[in-house]
Amino acid sequence: MELPPREVQRHLATWPVGRLATLDRTGHPSLVPVVFVVHERVAWSPVDGKPKRSAALARLEHVERDARVSLLLDDYAEDWTRLWWIRLDGNAEVVRSKDPESDPVLAPVVGALREKYPQYGEVPLFRGAPTLLRIDVHTVTSWCAASR
Amino acid sequence: MELPPREVQRHLATWPVGRLATLDRTGHPSLVPVVFVVHERVAWSPVDGKPKRSAALARLEHVERDARVSLLLDDYAEDWTRLWWIRLDGNAEVVRSKDPESDPVLAPVVGALREKYPQYGEVPLFRGAPTLLRIDVHTVTSWCAASR
Repeated sequence: MELPPREVQRHLATWPVGRLATLDRTGHPSLVPVVFVVHERVAWSPVDGKPKRSAALARLEHVERDARVSLLLDDYAEDWTRLWWIRLDGNAEVVRSKDPESDPVLAPVVGALREKYPQYGEVPLFRGAPTLLRIDVHTVTSWCAASR
Repeated sequence: MELPPREVQRHLATWPVGRLATLDRTGHPSLVPVVFVVHERVAWSPVDGKPKRSAALARLEHVERDARVSLLLDDYAEDWTRLWWIRLDGNAEVVRSKDPESDPVLAPVVGALREKYPQYGEVPLFRGAPTLLRIDVHTVTSWCAASR
């Protein structure tokens, strides 16, 4: 069954990690965990200062070639009656900004990321030129194992 | 940097949840959390008795149309120096068996699933005709935030 809308909203606002599926150059799905904030049916994920496998992030190349992505929020629990997931399907684009803090669209996103993730007190929110993935969500699907 | 091989092996043997990306009929990536066991470069995920969104599982339809999948294991931690992920890329097929417990290939898989997940003492390991996803893994990629 579906998660109650109030729980969907709560998880979208507070859940700390999502798993992002993009399409590689051959169309094969590729996965990576990401941090994110959701603001008015748009999910934002920064290219932050956590160490990366490579300087040219695969997820950016993928999205610039094919915008289709899926982002999954879920919690694993040994008690399987407590399982739930929320899937956001949409189209992503790479957003670059020299000064996101003074951009009218990006400033609230940056503020929301800093508020959600106190880790950005230590880890740089951006690495090099500030870059984010913007995911315009067209479909939200949810599931939970048991009535709440 | 990459996870040490010993840690990769340990997580593949014990990590309880993976996020599976398949391709829907339009080629859009789709995500769902799954339980699984890995045995000799093959990951197995049963269609078990946990409640589902629909009787005809989307992941099976997807794989029967396009075998390409990705399975991500990772752990989120507030301490970002502890982050890691392991990605298994491969090709999946749907395996159906009337009696997997007496099938020479499937019997050890069923045994491994029951050993890894004591929940199958309560939840049926299969629903209806026993069905599993078999993922032949061609690439294992890993990452961790800090040296171990």
